[in-house]
Amino acid sequence: MDATAKAFITPDALLAHWQGHRRLTRRLIDAFPDEELFTFSIGGMRSFGELAMEIVNMGVPMVQGAISGAWDAPTSREARPKQEVLRLWDETTAKLEALWPQIPPERFLETLTAFGQYTDALHNLILYVIDNEIHHRGQGYVYLRALEITPPPFYDRS
Amino acid sequence: MDATAKAFITPDALLAHWQGHRRLTRRLIDAFPDEELFTFSIGGMRSFGELAMEIVNMGVPMVQGAISGAWDAPTSREARPKQEVLRLWDETTAKLEALWPQIPPERFLETLTAFGQYTDALHNLILYVIDNEIHHRGQGYVYLRALEITPPPFYDRS
Repeated sequence: MDATAKAFITPDALLAHWQGHRRLTRRLIDAFPDEELFTFSIGGMRSFGELAMEIVNMGVPMVQGAISGAWDAPTSREARPKQEVLRLWDETTAKLEALWPQIPPERFLETLTAFGQYTDALHNLILYVIDNEIHHRGQGYVYLRALEITPPPFYDRS
Repeated sequence: MDATAKAFITPDALLAHWQGHRRLTRRLIDAFPDEELFTFSIGGMRSFGELAMEIVNMGVPMVQGAISGAWDAPTSREARPKQEVLRLWDETTAKLEALWPQIPPERFLETLTAFGQYTDALHNLILYVIDNEIHHRGQGYVYLRALEITPPPFYDRS
């Protein structure tokens, strides 16, 4: 651990970056018709609703584990109304804001084992969660285009 | 600029993270049949070959601009054989390794205007390039599945 390590990005700026991505993903969820969210698929892949629930189930448990060392991964990905997915999404947004400052700053550069099986620097574990969201959201863009729905612009994180 | 700013991640670790993503994207390009790379599409979106060329054209120009303040964005995205895309990809990999250490470390937290129009902290500008790659690669996963080709696993960055 090098306390004088140079920052590519600070923890606060990374959370702001993540929440920007999460605002965009929320717009993708909202752009799906309710009847397609957990049913539409291409090439045998999962529905966007299932992917959204995977994303909901990763973020807060990762941050909570980073704080407490207790790793608890909910697995509920059943179909539910879009408004319920969005409600869980907004709950996650608020929890991330509240929990993030509780991560000791030096911990981001430390190596942890998340969920009993993923051993890596905490920054890589957190980037994995964000990257997984971007990855699956890219899949959601194709689903929307295939449904002839114009998706929200990728560059807008407001 | 706060020289004592805490690091979420260091510049070296971020480059390693980026190159891991780039190894995966290279495998996606290679997984496409040559005859589908610049032709296959869903919902009127661009082919994966065009997206791969966009990605090739963003990384090195961003890093070069961050070093020199000179912003030059090539726009060549024409169809070409897969082996030529992979050759350009590998050229980019080597250039990024060589150029990255030339970015003064404090610059990542500074605000720049890239390509005469994108004003943001350099870390956000660079994350945009990486996120754009993940986003379009997610699109490539759907294309491969629709072509009944099993894509390489998302978690493997070796």
